[in-house]
Amino acid sequence: MLEKTTKMNMLYDFYQTLLTDKQREYMELYYYEDYSLGEIATETNVSRQAIYDNIKRTEQILMNYEEKLQLYEKFLQREALLVELAQQLTEANVAQLQSYIQQIKNID
Amino acid sequence: MLEKTTKMNMLYDFYQTLLTDKQREYMELYYYEDYSLGEIATETNVSRQAIYDNIKRTEQILMNYEEKLQLYEKFLQREALLVELAQQLTEANVAQLQSYIQQIKNID
Repeated sequence: MLEKTTKMNMLYDFYQTLLTDKQREYMELYYYEDYSLGEIATETNVSRQAIYDNIKRTEQILMNYEEKLQLYEKFLQREALLVELAQQLTEANVAQLQSYIQQIKNID
Repeated sequence: MLEKTTKMNMLYDFYQTLLTDKQREYMELYYYEDYSLGEIATETNVSRQAIYDNIKRTEQILMNYEEKLQLYEKFLQREALLVELAQQLTEANVAQLQSYIQQIKNID
């Protein structure tokens, strides 16, 4: 069973350059264009099962990259800190701002 | 010719989790421990030429990942903005600070 999740969309955003053209083609039809597996099969003249296997495998590859590089996880951490930073800015809480800057630096 | 550069050290930091154990071993001896190729050959009982070829190939792999993911390039951009951000903080220039935050968000 494949599930169209925000997380998989994000993982694709971060790691798509590491995939092959064919892997990208199926992922984009499935996740960006929201095609069904059957529609992709019709569109590409490849069996539904082969499409399913390819996408499933690609999802594993993306999760494997995330496990090793954690780009999505770091992005979420950085985003959360930047939101806090922007909020504190209106209150001009300098010590707290400096702490957020340090935390962002420490992520990489 | 291999050259021990700061950039290669940084690329190794960012992408080492994508390398094999053997690639990591040679890279760490060469770049972190500052062994010569000859010393690594003696240490590991592998020919100097094989060590050289392995490190040369690993450097290509790291540069290939950087070309695709640009983690080091984004890190440099983020660092530069964070330095500016920290400097402006002392002057409490809110509009400029907000602009830096937006630019950091836009990097990913």
